[in-house]
Amino acid sequence: MDPALFDDNERQAAVADARQFMDVGALDCECGASIPSVTIAYETWGALNAGRSNAILVCHALSGDSHAIGWWDRIVGPGRAVDTDKYFVIGTNCLGGCQGTTGPTTRHEDGKPWCSRFPLVTIGDMVEVQMRLVSALGIDSLHGACGGSMGGMQALEWSLRKPGSVKKVWMTGSTRAHNAMQIAFNEIGREAIMRDPKWRSGDYPVNDPPMDGLAVARMIGHLSYLSEASFEHKFARRFQGKSGPEWTLGTEFEVESYLSHQADKFTKRFDPNSYLVLTRALDYYDRTSLKGSQSEYLFTSFTIDWLYPTQQSLELLRLAQEAGHPAKHVEIDLPYGHDAFLLDAEQQGTVAGTFFAR
Amino acid sequence: MDPALFDDNERQAAVADARQFMDVGALDCECGASIPSVTIAYETWGALNAGRSNAILVCHALSGDSHAIGWWDRIVGPGRAVDTDKYFVIGTNCLGGCQGTTGPTTRHEDGKPWCSRFPLVTIGDMVEVQMRLVSALGIDSLHGACGGSMGGMQALEWSLRKPGSVKKVWMTGSTRAHNAMQIAFNEIGREAIMRDPKWRSGDYPVNDPPMDGLAVARMIGHLSYLSEASFEHKFARRFQGKSGPEWTLGTEFEVESYLSHQADKFTKRFDPNSYLVLTRALDYYDRTSLKGSQSEYLFTSFTIDWLYPTQQSLELLRLAQEAGHPAKHVEIDLPYGHDAFLLDAEQQGTVAGTFFAR
Repeated sequence: MDPALFDDNERQAAVADARQFMDVGALDCECGASIPSVTIAYETWGALNAGRSNAILVCHALSGDSHAIGWWDRIVGPGRAVDTDKYFVIGTNCLGGCQGTTGPTTRHEDGKPWCSRFPLVTIGDMVEVQMRLVSALGIDSLHGACGGSMGGMQALEWSLRKPGSVKKVWMTGSTRAHNAMQIAFNEIGREAIMRDPKWRSGDYPVNDPPMDGLAVARMIGHLSYLSEASFEHKFARRFQGKSGPEWTLGTEFEVESYLSHQADKFTKRFDPNSYLVLTRALDYYDRTSLKGSQSEYLFTSFTIDWLYPTQQSLELLRLAQEAGHPAKHVEIDLPYGHDAFLLDAEQQGTVAGTFFAR
Repeated sequence: MDPALFDDNERQAAVADARQFMDVGALDCECGASIPSVTIAYETWGALNAGRSNAILVCHALSGDSHAIGWWDRIVGPGRAVDTDKYFVIGTNCLGGCQGTTGPTTRHEDGKPWCSRFPLVTIGDMVEVQMRLVSALGIDSLHGACGGSMGGMQALEWSLRKPGSVKKVWMTGSTRAHNAMQIAFNEIGREAIMRDPKWRSGDYPVNDPPMDGLAVARMIGHLSYLSEASFEHKFARRFQGKSGPEWTLGTEFEVESYLSHQADKFTKRFDPNSYLVLTRALDYYDRTSLKGSQSEYLFTSFTIDWLYPTQQSLELLRLAQEAGHPAKHVEIDLPYGHDAFLLDAEQQGTVAGTFFAR
């Protein structure tokens, strides 16, 4: 058991104290590389029933962690859609991440962090590690798996990688594969990191990472998570703490202050190499059929999410129906852009709560 | 007369040999700073008629130059919408740019480039410099002014800054003011440049500019110029010269190769400080009324342009009508995103050709 090397207070504060760790052995990755020893960080809420049939796995998106009851507290908790009074809920940090599960910041056998040596893991590799954990917890089959964007891909992968391993799959604001524009968004973030001289081909010291590159990558992310409407609603053209321009390249507009604040918060808790690895995993993922699965599906999407547009959820619905699976799609009309999957308790919560309860 | 300091072959190749230069004197900028001596680079095509009443000014967008017959050859030329057989067409490089008109790369009186000392000029300042040129060419009033995005703002500003100075204004894919999301796009590009250690607070040597920051800024720009549909049509998920992943952070997908190619081309011909100055000018611009103008207006916009959406052209139409000016808006259905204003000869060309010919 070897949590990530970061011991920065803010990074630690970002995850719950209730985090547990499990060794799940060596992993042969899809890319051909091997990781001799994988540790998975996880948290659980609620109680496993006698039949061990009430477990729901919550998978996080790019910047999340095992603390689902934190970043997705509108969906996960007592009386929520993923009801911790009814279900045994499991949150994990994904393989390649930087919040406890083995990733680029973890110590290699030589005592130094993996850094550039860490392989480009896939969504399938992440799921393999989760499957070992779930199995070790004594669970043969999940009642449900769910998540938004990258989390949704993992939930989907559960149903395809080992049919029968999960009864119900809920994907929200997600897709079966990134399109060219989604790859482009990720690639520009990666370029920002890799062009930062502090990246040093991935082998930077823990205390001197390419923060500026990561900051720019995060800003690009936020651009894609919001919508024109939500940007306008939040900031419009308001100047930051003043009524007009000060003729500076420093902060002039409120929206600039917001981006800078988000970037600063993120660079204190996230690892640049993890950002590269996870966005690559997102871009590589490409499932073209849902045949062979034994799961039931729910797809939710949001009207003004232009990062994961509704059309991608409709394509998932079509694939599920073609493969003969029970499946439903619900489009939710909210002005928040992709962030809606984190913000909306009411609408997706109601649909998902019903889906899991049936 | 003092053209920009860059003598790099590619930068020079980007502008026409027919470029001329005119000294237009000292400029008191809107921000309060002064530029002791401004030179404007320009080109003309066609002949001025006896009444000096057939001049059309073509204003470039962020990355353009005076060579309108090059970057807008689908609109400007013999028999085109801006017909060089009928009109006396003037293209200029804007103030703050890096293709001949005074900007951050120009030598200051001390013989060194302006760099960080160059003021944050405005769209109004750019137009003031163009007005002096047009006046010096013996033209009292333009038949027309036109341009896309930043070029459109300049055309609009002509009509408001000095009513009667232009008869017809055509703005394509443009706006009266950037909204929060447009500011965000620009700001992230600026952050990419300013966080590049080679930026050195703006005072970098001409032969060692912050190329990486500028490259990332340009990639962000391209993200906003295309559309999901055009990205998908051009690249989909195709791998670059291979059938599957090579498990590398280098180029995997065609879209990555495209972004990298565009960035490389741009960094060879554009100055990072100019990028900062011009994007700031874009973000500062904010006209809330078209009252007082004596011009007739044509606004064109493109269905899938999500950088300058149709709604912004409709707002311009509303303001023009409120102010009692003859005005028309045409939305053009093309899948190219914002780039449509550069690519579309046929549809906007026909509407604009008729507008100028009436």
